[in-house]
Amino acid sequence: MFITLDGIDGAGKSTQIGMLCQWLSSRGCVVESVRDPGSTAPGEAIRGLLLDSDLEMHRRTEALLYMAARSQLVEERIRPALQSDTVVVSDRFLLANVVYQSVGGNEQPDLLWRLGQIATAGLQPDLTILLDLPASQAFERLTGPADRMESRGVDYLEQVRTAFREHLPRSGPQTAIIDATQSIDSMHAAIIAAVECLLPT
Amino acid sequence: MFITLDGIDGAGKSTQIGMLCQWLSSRGCVVESVRDPGSTAPGEAIRGLLLDSDLEMHRRTEALLYMAARSQLVEERIRPALQSDTVVVSDRFLLANVVYQSVGGNEQPDLLWRLGQIATAGLQPDLTILLDLPASQAFERLTGPADRMESRGVDYLEQVRTAFREHLPRSGPQTAIIDATQSIDSMHAAIIAAVECLLPT
Repeated sequence: MFITLDGIDGAGKSTQIGMLCQWLSSRGCVVESVRDPGSTAPGEAIRGLLLDSDLEMHRRTEALLYMAARSQLVEERIRPALQSDTVVVSDRFLLANVVYQSVGGNEQPDLLWRLGQIATAGLQPDLTILLDLPASQAFERLTGPADRMESRGVDYLEQVRTAFREHLPRSGPQTAIIDATQSIDSMHAAIIAAVECLLPT
Repeated sequence: MFITLDGIDGAGKSTQIGMLCQWLSSRGCVVESVRDPGSTAPGEAIRGLLLDSDLEMHRRTEALLYMAARSQLVEERIRPALQSDTVVVSDRFLLANVVYQSVGGNEQPDLLWRLGQIATAGLQPDLTILLDLPASQAFERLTGPADRMESRGVDYLEQVRTAFREHLPRSGPQTAIIDATQSIDSMHAAIIAAVECLLPT
């Protein structure tokens, strides 16, 4: 089983991924947690390029770098894990790439989905969980220096949020929207409910 | 006008590119010479990852990194140059990527051409010049430590040579095969002849 969690920064992905992995382990699952981009040596190196603010990049270059990192993640980590019955939980995946590139840049979502299909060789998450939070609340939760995305302001972030909801259905066969204004424990319960539907009894 | 030179290592690309650029300048053209991958800050950083032998990469990851570098090269250097009537001469382009990935790896050439079309947003060389040399002669010319490709042996390199000839027609509207067993000056003359057909009189 391959589960991805996504949503705008501040929605609580990291916390919920930690809780989900712990719950899956307690249910007897072997769990592997990864992040996209990253979690492989080439992927982390590519992530380094993407976060290097000195490198001015065309949006399409950026998209292709995300795709390269994802291709490596799929072949080196995700596919082998799934073949040995490990549950893989990924912090972000193709959906976020489509969302940020089509809102922030002017790339066509269709093109990005097609590129994504090539990069992943068709691998989709069995379950895509979107943590949905109004942009204004995400802003309140953020601490530390604003990154490039955050510095674009709340209106932009609200567009991203809307795009996540719009594109979610294309991420895979099963998707869930979790209200991220809830308490941490309520969110966790809602996530478990979505995951339990997929688990063999 | 956008001209690319390609072929296996040892065929004389660098020498011929230098001579071609000089000749174009002497004819009054503004010339810009680039290499793919490379010639932009992100492109050179990506080239660094591709040449880093410590990073073990899936072939598809590698292909996507080449595509990312090429996307940046097209948008940052080639397209702006062409718009200001500069002649661009590139050391390699999409053709080599298709050839090396489909011979060395097991990626489908069709998929690579399609990826390439996305990466370049459809930009093709006006003229693609293939320097064609038997692999055995290329080996004799090579000096210095063998890189990954050379260390795969002469039979492999002959397969690459054949693939270059096979895929060449798809590189763009006009292509030329130059016999690279000739002297440097004869090769130059043959290249000039191919380029002159494209130049406005």
